[in-house]
Amino acid sequence: MSKFFSEKYKSLEPYVPGEQPKDTVYIKLNTNESPFPPCEEVIRASKDAASDLQLYPDPDCSELIKKLAEVYGVSTDEITVNNGSDETLNFAFMAYCDKSHPAVFPDITYGFYPVFAQINGIPYEEIPLESDFSININKYKGINKTVFIANPNAPTGIALNLEQIEEILSSNPDNIVVIDEAYVDFGAKSAVKLIHKYNNLLVTQTFSKSRSMAGARLGFGIANKDIIADLNAVKYSTNPYNINRVTAAAGVAALKNESYTIENCKKIEENREYTSENLKELGFICTPSRANFIFAKSPKIGGKELYLELKKRGVLIRHFEKERIKDYNRITVGSKEQMDILLERIKEIL
Amino acid sequence: MSKFFSEKYKSLEPYVPGEQPKDTVYIKLNTNESPFPPCEEVIRASKDAASDLQLYPDPDCSELIKKLAEVYGVSTDEITVNNGSDETLNFAFMAYCDKSHPAVFPDITYGFYPVFAQINGIPYEEIPLESDFSININKYKGINKTVFIANPNAPTGIALNLEQIEEILSSNPDNIVVIDEAYVDFGAKSAVKLIHKYNNLLVTQTFSKSRSMAGARLGFGIANKDIIADLNAVKYSTNPYNINRVTAAAGVAALKNESYTIENCKKIEENREYTSENLKELGFICTPSRANFIFAKSPKIGGKELYLELKKRGVLIRHFEKERIKDYNRITVGSKEQMDILLERIKEIL
Repeated sequence: MSKFFSEKYKSLEPYVPGEQPKDTVYIKLNTNESPFPPCEEVIRASKDAASDLQLYPDPDCSELIKKLAEVYGVSTDEITVNNGSDETLNFAFMAYCDKSHPAVFPDITYGFYPVFAQINGIPYEEIPLESDFSININKYKGINKTVFIANPNAPTGIALNLEQIEEILSSNPDNIVVIDEAYVDFGAKSAVKLIHKYNNLLVTQTFSKSRSMAGARLGFGIANKDIIADLNAVKYSTNPYNINRVTAAAGVAALKNESYTIENCKKIEENREYTSENLKELGFICTPSRANFIFAKSPKIGGKELYLELKKRGVLIRHFEKERIKDYNRITVGSKEQMDILLERIKEIL
Repeated sequence: MSKFFSEKYKSLEPYVPGEQPKDTVYIKLNTNESPFPPCEEVIRASKDAASDLQLYPDPDCSELIKKLAEVYGVSTDEITVNNGSDETLNFAFMAYCDKSHPAVFPDITYGFYPVFAQINGIPYEEIPLESDFSININKYKGINKTVFIANPNAPTGIALNLEQIEEILSSNPDNIVVIDEAYVDFGAKSAVKLIHKYNNLLVTQTFSKSRSMAGARLGFGIANKDIIADLNAVKYSTNPYNINRVTAAAGVAALKNESYTIENCKKIEENREYTSENLKELGFICTPSRANFIFAKSPKIGGKELYLELKKRGVLIRHFEKERIKDYNRITVGSKEQMDILLERIKEIL
């Protein structure tokens, strides 16, 4: 830290992304990436776009937004696109939270929420999950704060249903409720269709998981047009060209091939159920995940120990050094072959 | 604007990028893009990287930073990479300005500086350029504010020399001085080598102009390692994966082909001098630009009128509706062929 660093950031604790070791080739089940490459059309569109890199991207991303509007059944002015969900979420913290509008989210959820709050000088409250790691929606009703809920939640994978989300929305008419649907495509229900019913709803999604595009950095927000206008005002005041040419073209191509995405999601769901069943047979306790990861603990081995033993054997999973969940690990659901190797290694270790 | 938008942003005036019309094909001399495509190796590297889009990028951008360190003769911990210079600049406003550390910059300069200040709630002062549009460095000496200077300045193209920059740096030992070198590769002197002499210096650069990569969104900052640590703390608290896989790979390839960049910059400089000479013969007054654009006015036609007449004839240049410079236009230096068409059209109009 330099002596010039602004006082307001002196106690900043930045987000720590999942490890990306460069020393050897691992089976990477630690950052919720897709085991499937993007479809051929995405690769081709990316290649074509690379030839025009000397030109700025379209800051409005018109083609991409038009295609998103088509796929999600909303208007083009009800969508904003950003450099990954993270950026949309940060813009939402900026736009809808301040000293008089604190943020609220579960104690166990996406680890970036408290970081976004800190960098923006926003007070926040963490509401403990129940002992089964479910969200008790009664604790969010009429809370008079800006609500952030990952649905399905991370790293538990547990999803709320739409009736529960509606109860939170309708009881907080004066506050924005952000539903972070990074993992929604693997079996949970999206709240997108509720944006015309609730003017306080912002849904965020990403191309990183279900569309195999974590490396492209493309996220989006869907909400009524006034909210989108707010978020775009923030975007055009920080980085209007946040989506590059290749990413915009890749996004359009992915949306033209939704069947590939749907098929891959189906495979992931199957592999998730297959792996969970097998883990349970080995004595593991797994939360009922609707995401592309499994959250599991074994009565026979500690979370950190299992993580380290698997790493020694070439399989990376994610362990969180956090009191309530330190016995657990988050395991990304990969291909059937990867899951079989994982199960094999776990049997060896136990 | 929604009723939920935070009070702090209610008077936000977002940045307005140069127009990107979609209705017809223009000779685009309005956003300072390179007329040359990226080199073959950049295109090839982009294509290769597109095949692995399902994987997150390396958040540390190790290979890119290693290559940048090599090219600029600094250590890897003296570099940060971001989603365009704009993001590095925004992070600098965040990290080094606050209510007790206002920002200061010229009244005529990159139009994003006041926007960065506004979005971050930072008070700022604009110091008028002299009547010939030069920066009077005496007005920045010992100013006790965080200084932002584009060198060469935009849209004037006028550059300070290193002795002048050193005077600003040495007279402000308790404040960061940001030298924004987006346009430095077209004939001005870079302050990068001063980072080991002044611990208050941050130099920002971009791949957008000289390296023909505006569409890739890649900028970087060079400073002593404590400053880089500050900026990375901000980056890891907002968007750690801000550089995507394709852009990182393209950046490495561009740096392996510096001769292509140098050659293109030389051509732009030649075309700039050629065009300026011709404009002067037509009665134009041009500032002594060291950038990839010309800033010029004609005694025979207003700035806005010339802009509109050229647009009608298929040539886009940039006009700024700002009192002191409304007689001028900023004209990006393109290929010789583009410059000849521009000159032809101007002759028709006059």
